[in-house]
Amino acid sequence: MAVGHSLRGLDASALKVTGIDSPKPLPDPGSEELRNIKAATDRMIVASWSASKGWDTPEVVPYGPISLMPSASALQYGTQCFEGMKVFRGYDGRLRLFRPLYNCERLLKSGTRICLPSFDPKEVLKLIHKICELEAPRWLPKEQAGSALYIRPTLIASDSSLGFKVPEEAQLYIFLMYWPSPKPSSGPGQPPKTGVRLWASPETAVRAWPGGTGAAKVGGNYGAALPEHSLASSKGYNQVLWLYGPDRLITEAGSTNIFIMWRTNSGSLQMVTSPLDENNLILAGNTRRSIIELSRQMFAAGTANKEHELDVLERDIPIAEVEKAASQGRLVGAFVTGTAFWIQEISEIFYNSATIMVPMGTTPHVELLRGRMSDIMFGNVESDWVELVAEP
Amino acid sequence: MAVGHSLRGLDASALKVTGIDSPKPLPDPGSEELRNIKAATDRMIVASWSASKGWDTPEVVPYGPISLMPSASALQYGTQCFEGMKVFRGYDGRLRLFRPLYNCERLLKSGTRICLPSFDPKEVLKLIHKICELEAPRWLPKEQAGSALYIRPTLIASDSSLGFKVPEEAQLYIFLMYWPSPKPSSGPGQPPKTGVRLWASPETAVRAWPGGTGAAKVGGNYGAALPEHSLASSKGYNQVLWLYGPDRLITEAGSTNIFIMWRTNSGSLQMVTSPLDENNLILAGNTRRSIIELSRQMFAAGTANKEHELDVLERDIPIAEVEKAASQGRLVGAFVTGTAFWIQEISEIFYNSATIMVPMGTTPHVELLRGRMSDIMFGNVESDWVELVAEP
Repeated sequence: MAVGHSLRGLDASALKVTGIDSPKPLPDPGSEELRNIKAATDRMIVASWSASKGWDTPEVVPYGPISLMPSASALQYGTQCFEGMKVFRGYDGRLRLFRPLYNCERLLKSGTRICLPSFDPKEVLKLIHKICELEAPRWLPKEQAGSALYIRPTLIASDSSLGFKVPEEAQLYIFLMYWPSPKPSSGPGQPPKTGVRLWASPETAVRAWPGGTGAAKVGGNYGAALPEHSLASSKGYNQVLWLYGPDRLITEAGSTNIFIMWRTNSGSLQMVTSPLDENNLILAGNTRRSIIELSRQMFAAGTANKEHELDVLERDIPIAEVEKAASQGRLVGAFVTGTAFWIQEISEIFYNSATIMVPMGTTPHVELLRGRMSDIMFGNVESDWVELVAEP
Repeated sequence: MAVGHSLRGLDASALKVTGIDSPKPLPDPGSEELRNIKAATDRMIVASWSASKGWDTPEVVPYGPISLMPSASALQYGTQCFEGMKVFRGYDGRLRLFRPLYNCERLLKSGTRICLPSFDPKEVLKLIHKICELEAPRWLPKEQAGSALYIRPTLIASDSSLGFKVPEEAQLYIFLMYWPSPKPSSGPGQPPKTGVRLWASPETAVRAWPGGTGAAKVGGNYGAALPEHSLASSKGYNQVLWLYGPDRLITEAGSTNIFIMWRTNSGSLQMVTSPLDENNLILAGNTRRSIIELSRQMFAAGTANKEHELDVLERDIPIAEVEKAASQGRLVGAFVTGTAFWIQEISEIFYNSATIMVPMGTTPHVELLRGRMSDIMFGNVESDWVELVAEP
């Protein structure tokens, strides 16, 4: 095997770009392909890695099947991880990425958790810029201001050895897909029927555990969560609310982070969310951290409208505390956040054979946060959280 | 979607068989391809499933790349599971499968754990017979009595929707591969240097947990175990000994089950292995159950040579008990079992900054069990544990 310093690093500047002869027709809005989240754009970026040579030159190729040996590590041993991001078409006609380096760094962390190869996250970011430059002008045209395309960087082990070992071959690919807009939650004064309905997991179903992979965006987390997700869906719920341990701590809801708003016994307003700690139970969402940071600015004592003031806490949340707040009339609201699912209010939580009704629209916080996030993403306000994508 | 009763079940009798024009040369013994566990036979069986139609006609096709959309559930969400089996070339020149229905039933259980489609395990068994009939005559010829080919049935979700949902398309494939023989352990009286060296996992690394997927043969279990496996390898150990919980219970070693032999304080001999309980921490190995059943026959009180008598117990094994038995001179031996790794004696366990030396070859039990298992697999004795594979 070659020595470390002779291995090639991932180099976005070497990207080989090929044109496409006959671009696909754009899918009709409401088409089955789009609704089923299968409508990818014309091209993707791929880059191969081997332990002996390092990263090969990345290439732009037509979006299409990946070819893997049946014995490939990614198909047998779950050596796969991914990221979820979006490119936004602003009201000023420009394309933006939202805090994208964070996702590239998280991809590296997820890959490292399952022994996939290392890379410079900044090079992945450059590749993401490049595929957006190439694909977004046609797939996210200027007249679609206020909409977005979903970006899915994926890193898998293509090593075809059936042995259980650190993979010696891998592939990075980055593709873009339409992601149907989640239904917006009702605004203030609207009935709560469009809120997210959560099904709390029983003790027999566990998404993540200390020492596991809960904080990494690896495939294994998702397949293992399907039976409970399927059960929740069959009961008419949108997502599983994943509880952990004997204290039934709230961790994640489906593939999103969760925030609860309540009044303390002394009457002050709090927004709480599960912590990122050494237990590594939850994914460190990009929307999650942005909501925390924005809330601390927008609703800080002194800066905010007095009645909007709230404290934001990252701490363990036993679901019994939510139950108690609801029963005492102190529960103010709750919402989930994620790149794909955006910011959506929760209307109810089924837990322990009973329903916790969650007020919706009783305070303007969620609407204000959603508005500020949209303003940043779509260029209505200046922000160093976004990066402009060059367009021809 | 079609109603349930109109869906086609998996039907091995409909198998489409095509010949091959130019069979591959057999790999040289000791070739890199073989050593790297990449040497598959010429053909494999594939069968596709969709939620609307059920199982399509299974087909024999050349062994070669699988084609999946980049968004495929199996690549993104870890919806993948597999089995490990062998076909044995007997000393009588005949081909045998060892308790193969068990593996087919376990494949169904593993798939169900991650919402992959159902099938009749007996049909998978028929397909396994068929691919062995087709491939083994050339790849495991009669003059190779006493050797085996490894069989890898694999079930993955090929659904190309990027949405997180129960997959609506899947593929079953079954291929055969050479698996290099594990080094045999030393016999009685031999030095212990060829034994398996185990590295006990620290509390920060957890393979499986109650409510998780430890008892299912799903990909996610393996990728997540790679960092600790890689660390153990770098320290010169062969496998991770996976401990669980505050009592540091012994669960599995690498991808194998583990058995410990010790003398009780009263001097009687015991063989202990981790239980299959509602915690679902360990895989229910086919070799594991066979060793338990054989030991209970061969070493039962009254039937065995008096000094070979032992009790077989499935129960929790805190590693402290092994430490204590070793320090008191009561530890008699230990071994791991698995289809790929066979039955191998353990020479040492590194735990808590110290090495537990494990005696090897001090009793004949492992050698007797290995001999009996081989006799069954290779046809030296009659047994209803094996099924003959038809040959042209």
